[in-house]
Amino acid sequence: MPDSPRQILDMNAFDARQQPASPAVSRRLRNFGAASVLFYQEPIELVSAEGCWMQAADGRRYLDFYNNVPSVGHSHPAVVAAVREQIGQLNINTRYVVDVVDGYLEALKAQLPALLDNVVLTCSGSEANDLAMRIACKATGGTGFIVTENAYHGNTQYVTEISPSAWKQGSAPPHVITIPAPSAQNYGDDLTAGFAENVKAAIDELAWYGQSPAALICDSIFSSDGVFPDPAGFLKPAVEAIHQAGGLFIADEVQPGFGRTGEAFWGFARHGVIPDLVTMGKPMGNGFPMAAVAAKSADLEQFCAQTGYFNTFGGNPVAAAAGHAVLKVLEQEGLQKNALVVGRYLRARLGDLVQRDPRLGDLRGAGLFLGLDLCQPDAPDAPDAALATDVINRLKTHGVLIGAAGRYGATLKIRPPLCLSQDEADIFCHALDLALG
Amino acid sequence: MPDSPRQILDMNAFDARQQPASPAVSRRLRNFGAASVLFYQEPIELVSAEGCWMQAADGRRYLDFYNNVPSVGHSHPAVVAAVREQIGQLNINTRYVVDVVDGYLEALKAQLPALLDNVVLTCSGSEANDLAMRIACKATGGTGFIVTENAYHGNTQYVTEISPSAWKQGSAPPHVITIPAPSAQNYGDDLTAGFAENVKAAIDELAWYGQSPAALICDSIFSSDGVFPDPAGFLKPAVEAIHQAGGLFIADEVQPGFGRTGEAFWGFARHGVIPDLVTMGKPMGNGFPMAAVAAKSADLEQFCAQTGYFNTFGGNPVAAAAGHAVLKVLEQEGLQKNALVVGRYLRARLGDLVQRDPRLGDLRGAGLFLGLDLCQPDAPDAPDAALATDVINRLKTHGVLIGAAGRYGATLKIRPPLCLSQDEADIFCHALDLALG
Repeated sequence: MPDSPRQILDMNAFDARQQPASPAVSRRLRNFGAASVLFYQEPIELVSAEGCWMQAADGRRYLDFYNNVPSVGHSHPAVVAAVREQIGQLNINTRYVVDVVDGYLEALKAQLPALLDNVVLTCSGSEANDLAMRIACKATGGTGFIVTENAYHGNTQYVTEISPSAWKQGSAPPHVITIPAPSAQNYGDDLTAGFAENVKAAIDELAWYGQSPAALICDSIFSSDGVFPDPAGFLKPAVEAIHQAGGLFIADEVQPGFGRTGEAFWGFARHGVIPDLVTMGKPMGNGFPMAAVAAKSADLEQFCAQTGYFNTFGGNPVAAAAGHAVLKVLEQEGLQKNALVVGRYLRARLGDLVQRDPRLGDLRGAGLFLGLDLCQPDAPDAPDAALATDVINRLKTHGVLIGAAGRYGATLKIRPPLCLSQDEADIFCHALDLALG
Repeated sequence: MPDSPRQILDMNAFDARQQPASPAVSRRLRNFGAASVLFYQEPIELVSAEGCWMQAADGRRYLDFYNNVPSVGHSHPAVVAAVREQIGQLNINTRYVVDVVDGYLEALKAQLPALLDNVVLTCSGSEANDLAMRIACKATGGTGFIVTENAYHGNTQYVTEISPSAWKQGSAPPHVITIPAPSAQNYGDDLTAGFAENVKAAIDELAWYGQSPAALICDSIFSSDGVFPDPAGFLKPAVEAIHQAGGLFIADEVQPGFGRTGEAFWGFARHGVIPDLVTMGKPMGNGFPMAAVAAKSADLEQFCAQTGYFNTFGGNPVAAAAGHAVLKVLEQEGLQKNALVVGRYLRARLGDLVQRDPRLGDLRGAGLFLGLDLCQPDAPDAPDAALATDVINRLKTHGVLIGAAGRYGATLKIRPPLCLSQDEADIFCHALDLALG
């Protein structure tokens, strides 16, 4: 188990101090230096990928249960075709009108609450959250942010301050209050009331520091906290509490958005809330770098009166073409429904394993975003991060790529592409069985 | 003339309060809201682009003298082919080894000072500057930044604080000291000594606030200040001054990098200095969203020990393929040399116009990055921003796209693709003559 939650990010990373580096890995370390984050004790060199499968340089094939960016499937032909066509035509910034860009935004807005009538396109989820935070400050006059204890919202200076899972040293700055993740372990039977109570306590704590809240910001499936989707609706009283205190609710949909939870297009929709700001990224372009903030026009206007905002690459027509292709594929291939159906099947199969193996603890999830706790035998409240690391590396030898999350890094984070078939779900379950055996 | 330098960014923008909006523009405003920044009193709808030329929906063709992103030419076949190939193959994050990515980084590092041996790939210049600032803070223990009075370094919260040209309200936060742009108007005959003196004064001012400097950060051609490249070498004593005070020098090469100045691959090289950190972006992928920080491995290590940094889209193999294609095209087509030769030709032709027209003031530049001041007749120190706006809109009717920069927005910012031919330079000069006539 790591000394602190903050070491989780590196838990499954290659560590040059512990393992000899292959020529390919040495080369990577020479180029990336300390910023190199390679998975696995023996990192994988990849050459291609298609659907749910990735092909390594050594001829091995891996079933991808980790990467939520290529959400409609690696190298999806429709997205590839859209990028190939647009990049040969026009790739320019949004200082000019381009039909492709507005066509995309209309399709995207059709998926969003009508109140959020403006979209700012950015390059990354980090940029989107950075901007959303600033819009929230301007709209509320507040400066404080409330986040969960192991949240991750991105990598800029401002966003890192609200991303406890990225802190290796130090503690929360005074304008950031962390609250326990919405787990049964933390809140017992009445998670809904308990989580809202903690939001209220955080508001009081901000007041103690002489600050008012700008926003409560949540990844609405609490991915890096360990995947906590249930009970659906538990966010509602927390959102009411932040509103009552004059703050906004920012739904960070970078992880749960675009159909992954199966039950809704956005993670927040499962909770019956309408956010004041929605940020999105990762799966938005199936790997093409793009992200966005959806905002109310009045809030955006207030922000833009103070600060000029322009994003050179944000909203370029190639990104728009990729993003529009993703929306069309999601609909045409019924991937949200597939996430629901295959997600339920996968969960049932995993449930069988949980019944049989005392080292498998709580199993949670919505659609194709599941969390499975690894624990000491018959002690579901005693996380076993070493076992998780071991299982992750064994799963690799059995041809499956996966990662961990949560406070102790003991939760398997299960998020394959949304086009996963039942056969592929079976392959995963069989490999997990072997890895545990 | 705008009331303050801070209004420049919007000077040539479409303003719905002033002009009626076409259906296409209304649609854009509905989607983008207040964050919409459309050029021109009558914005342009584009459909395609090739080389230095852009094609509008109404059948008009425009010579592009504004966009420095498609630096090797719009829709360059080699870059398009590289993206098309790689996106059908593999598009994944840097947690796995991918040969294309390390091959690119080796080619990029070959263009950089050997001391800067690590590269962190990001999605945007904003992300690159945000990260470089944080690396500088950690490496120096300082928190202060010194920037020029009308600088622009990006759009995140942290970077906006060092981007005076983006501030519409308020003033510099206490950790940011602004110094006058390196113009003859500001410093007279001894710009070199004067600029360094101002850096020293800024260091003293930081000390007054109880802070030590993290870095002096300069766009090494001072683009948004109004394009100030000369005398080459003037940055050297300023860099010595920041080093003496324990701070770093960050060269923001987002604007001058990748051969644009003709005289060197990077803007800083013209000044005979070796930066501690180099940031780059815009032309790096000829429009594919990508950017980077080049750092010394020890500085990066120190930063990464404090904060986990991972960039999901940064360093994806499609970006690497685009970036590598750009480097190859620059070399194979001799575009740095072309920037030098055609840049000199263009400058000579513009010099003829300056001789003849008393409203054309100072002409400055390096390679294909020129600044031309528009002024009151025979009064080169009296900038005429209204004339600049007028000329920019007239140039559009004569088929040329261009923008303005500088404290008063009275400097034409001339930066066509690097593949510009002498004939195309002539077309621009002829159009400018007509626009002024």
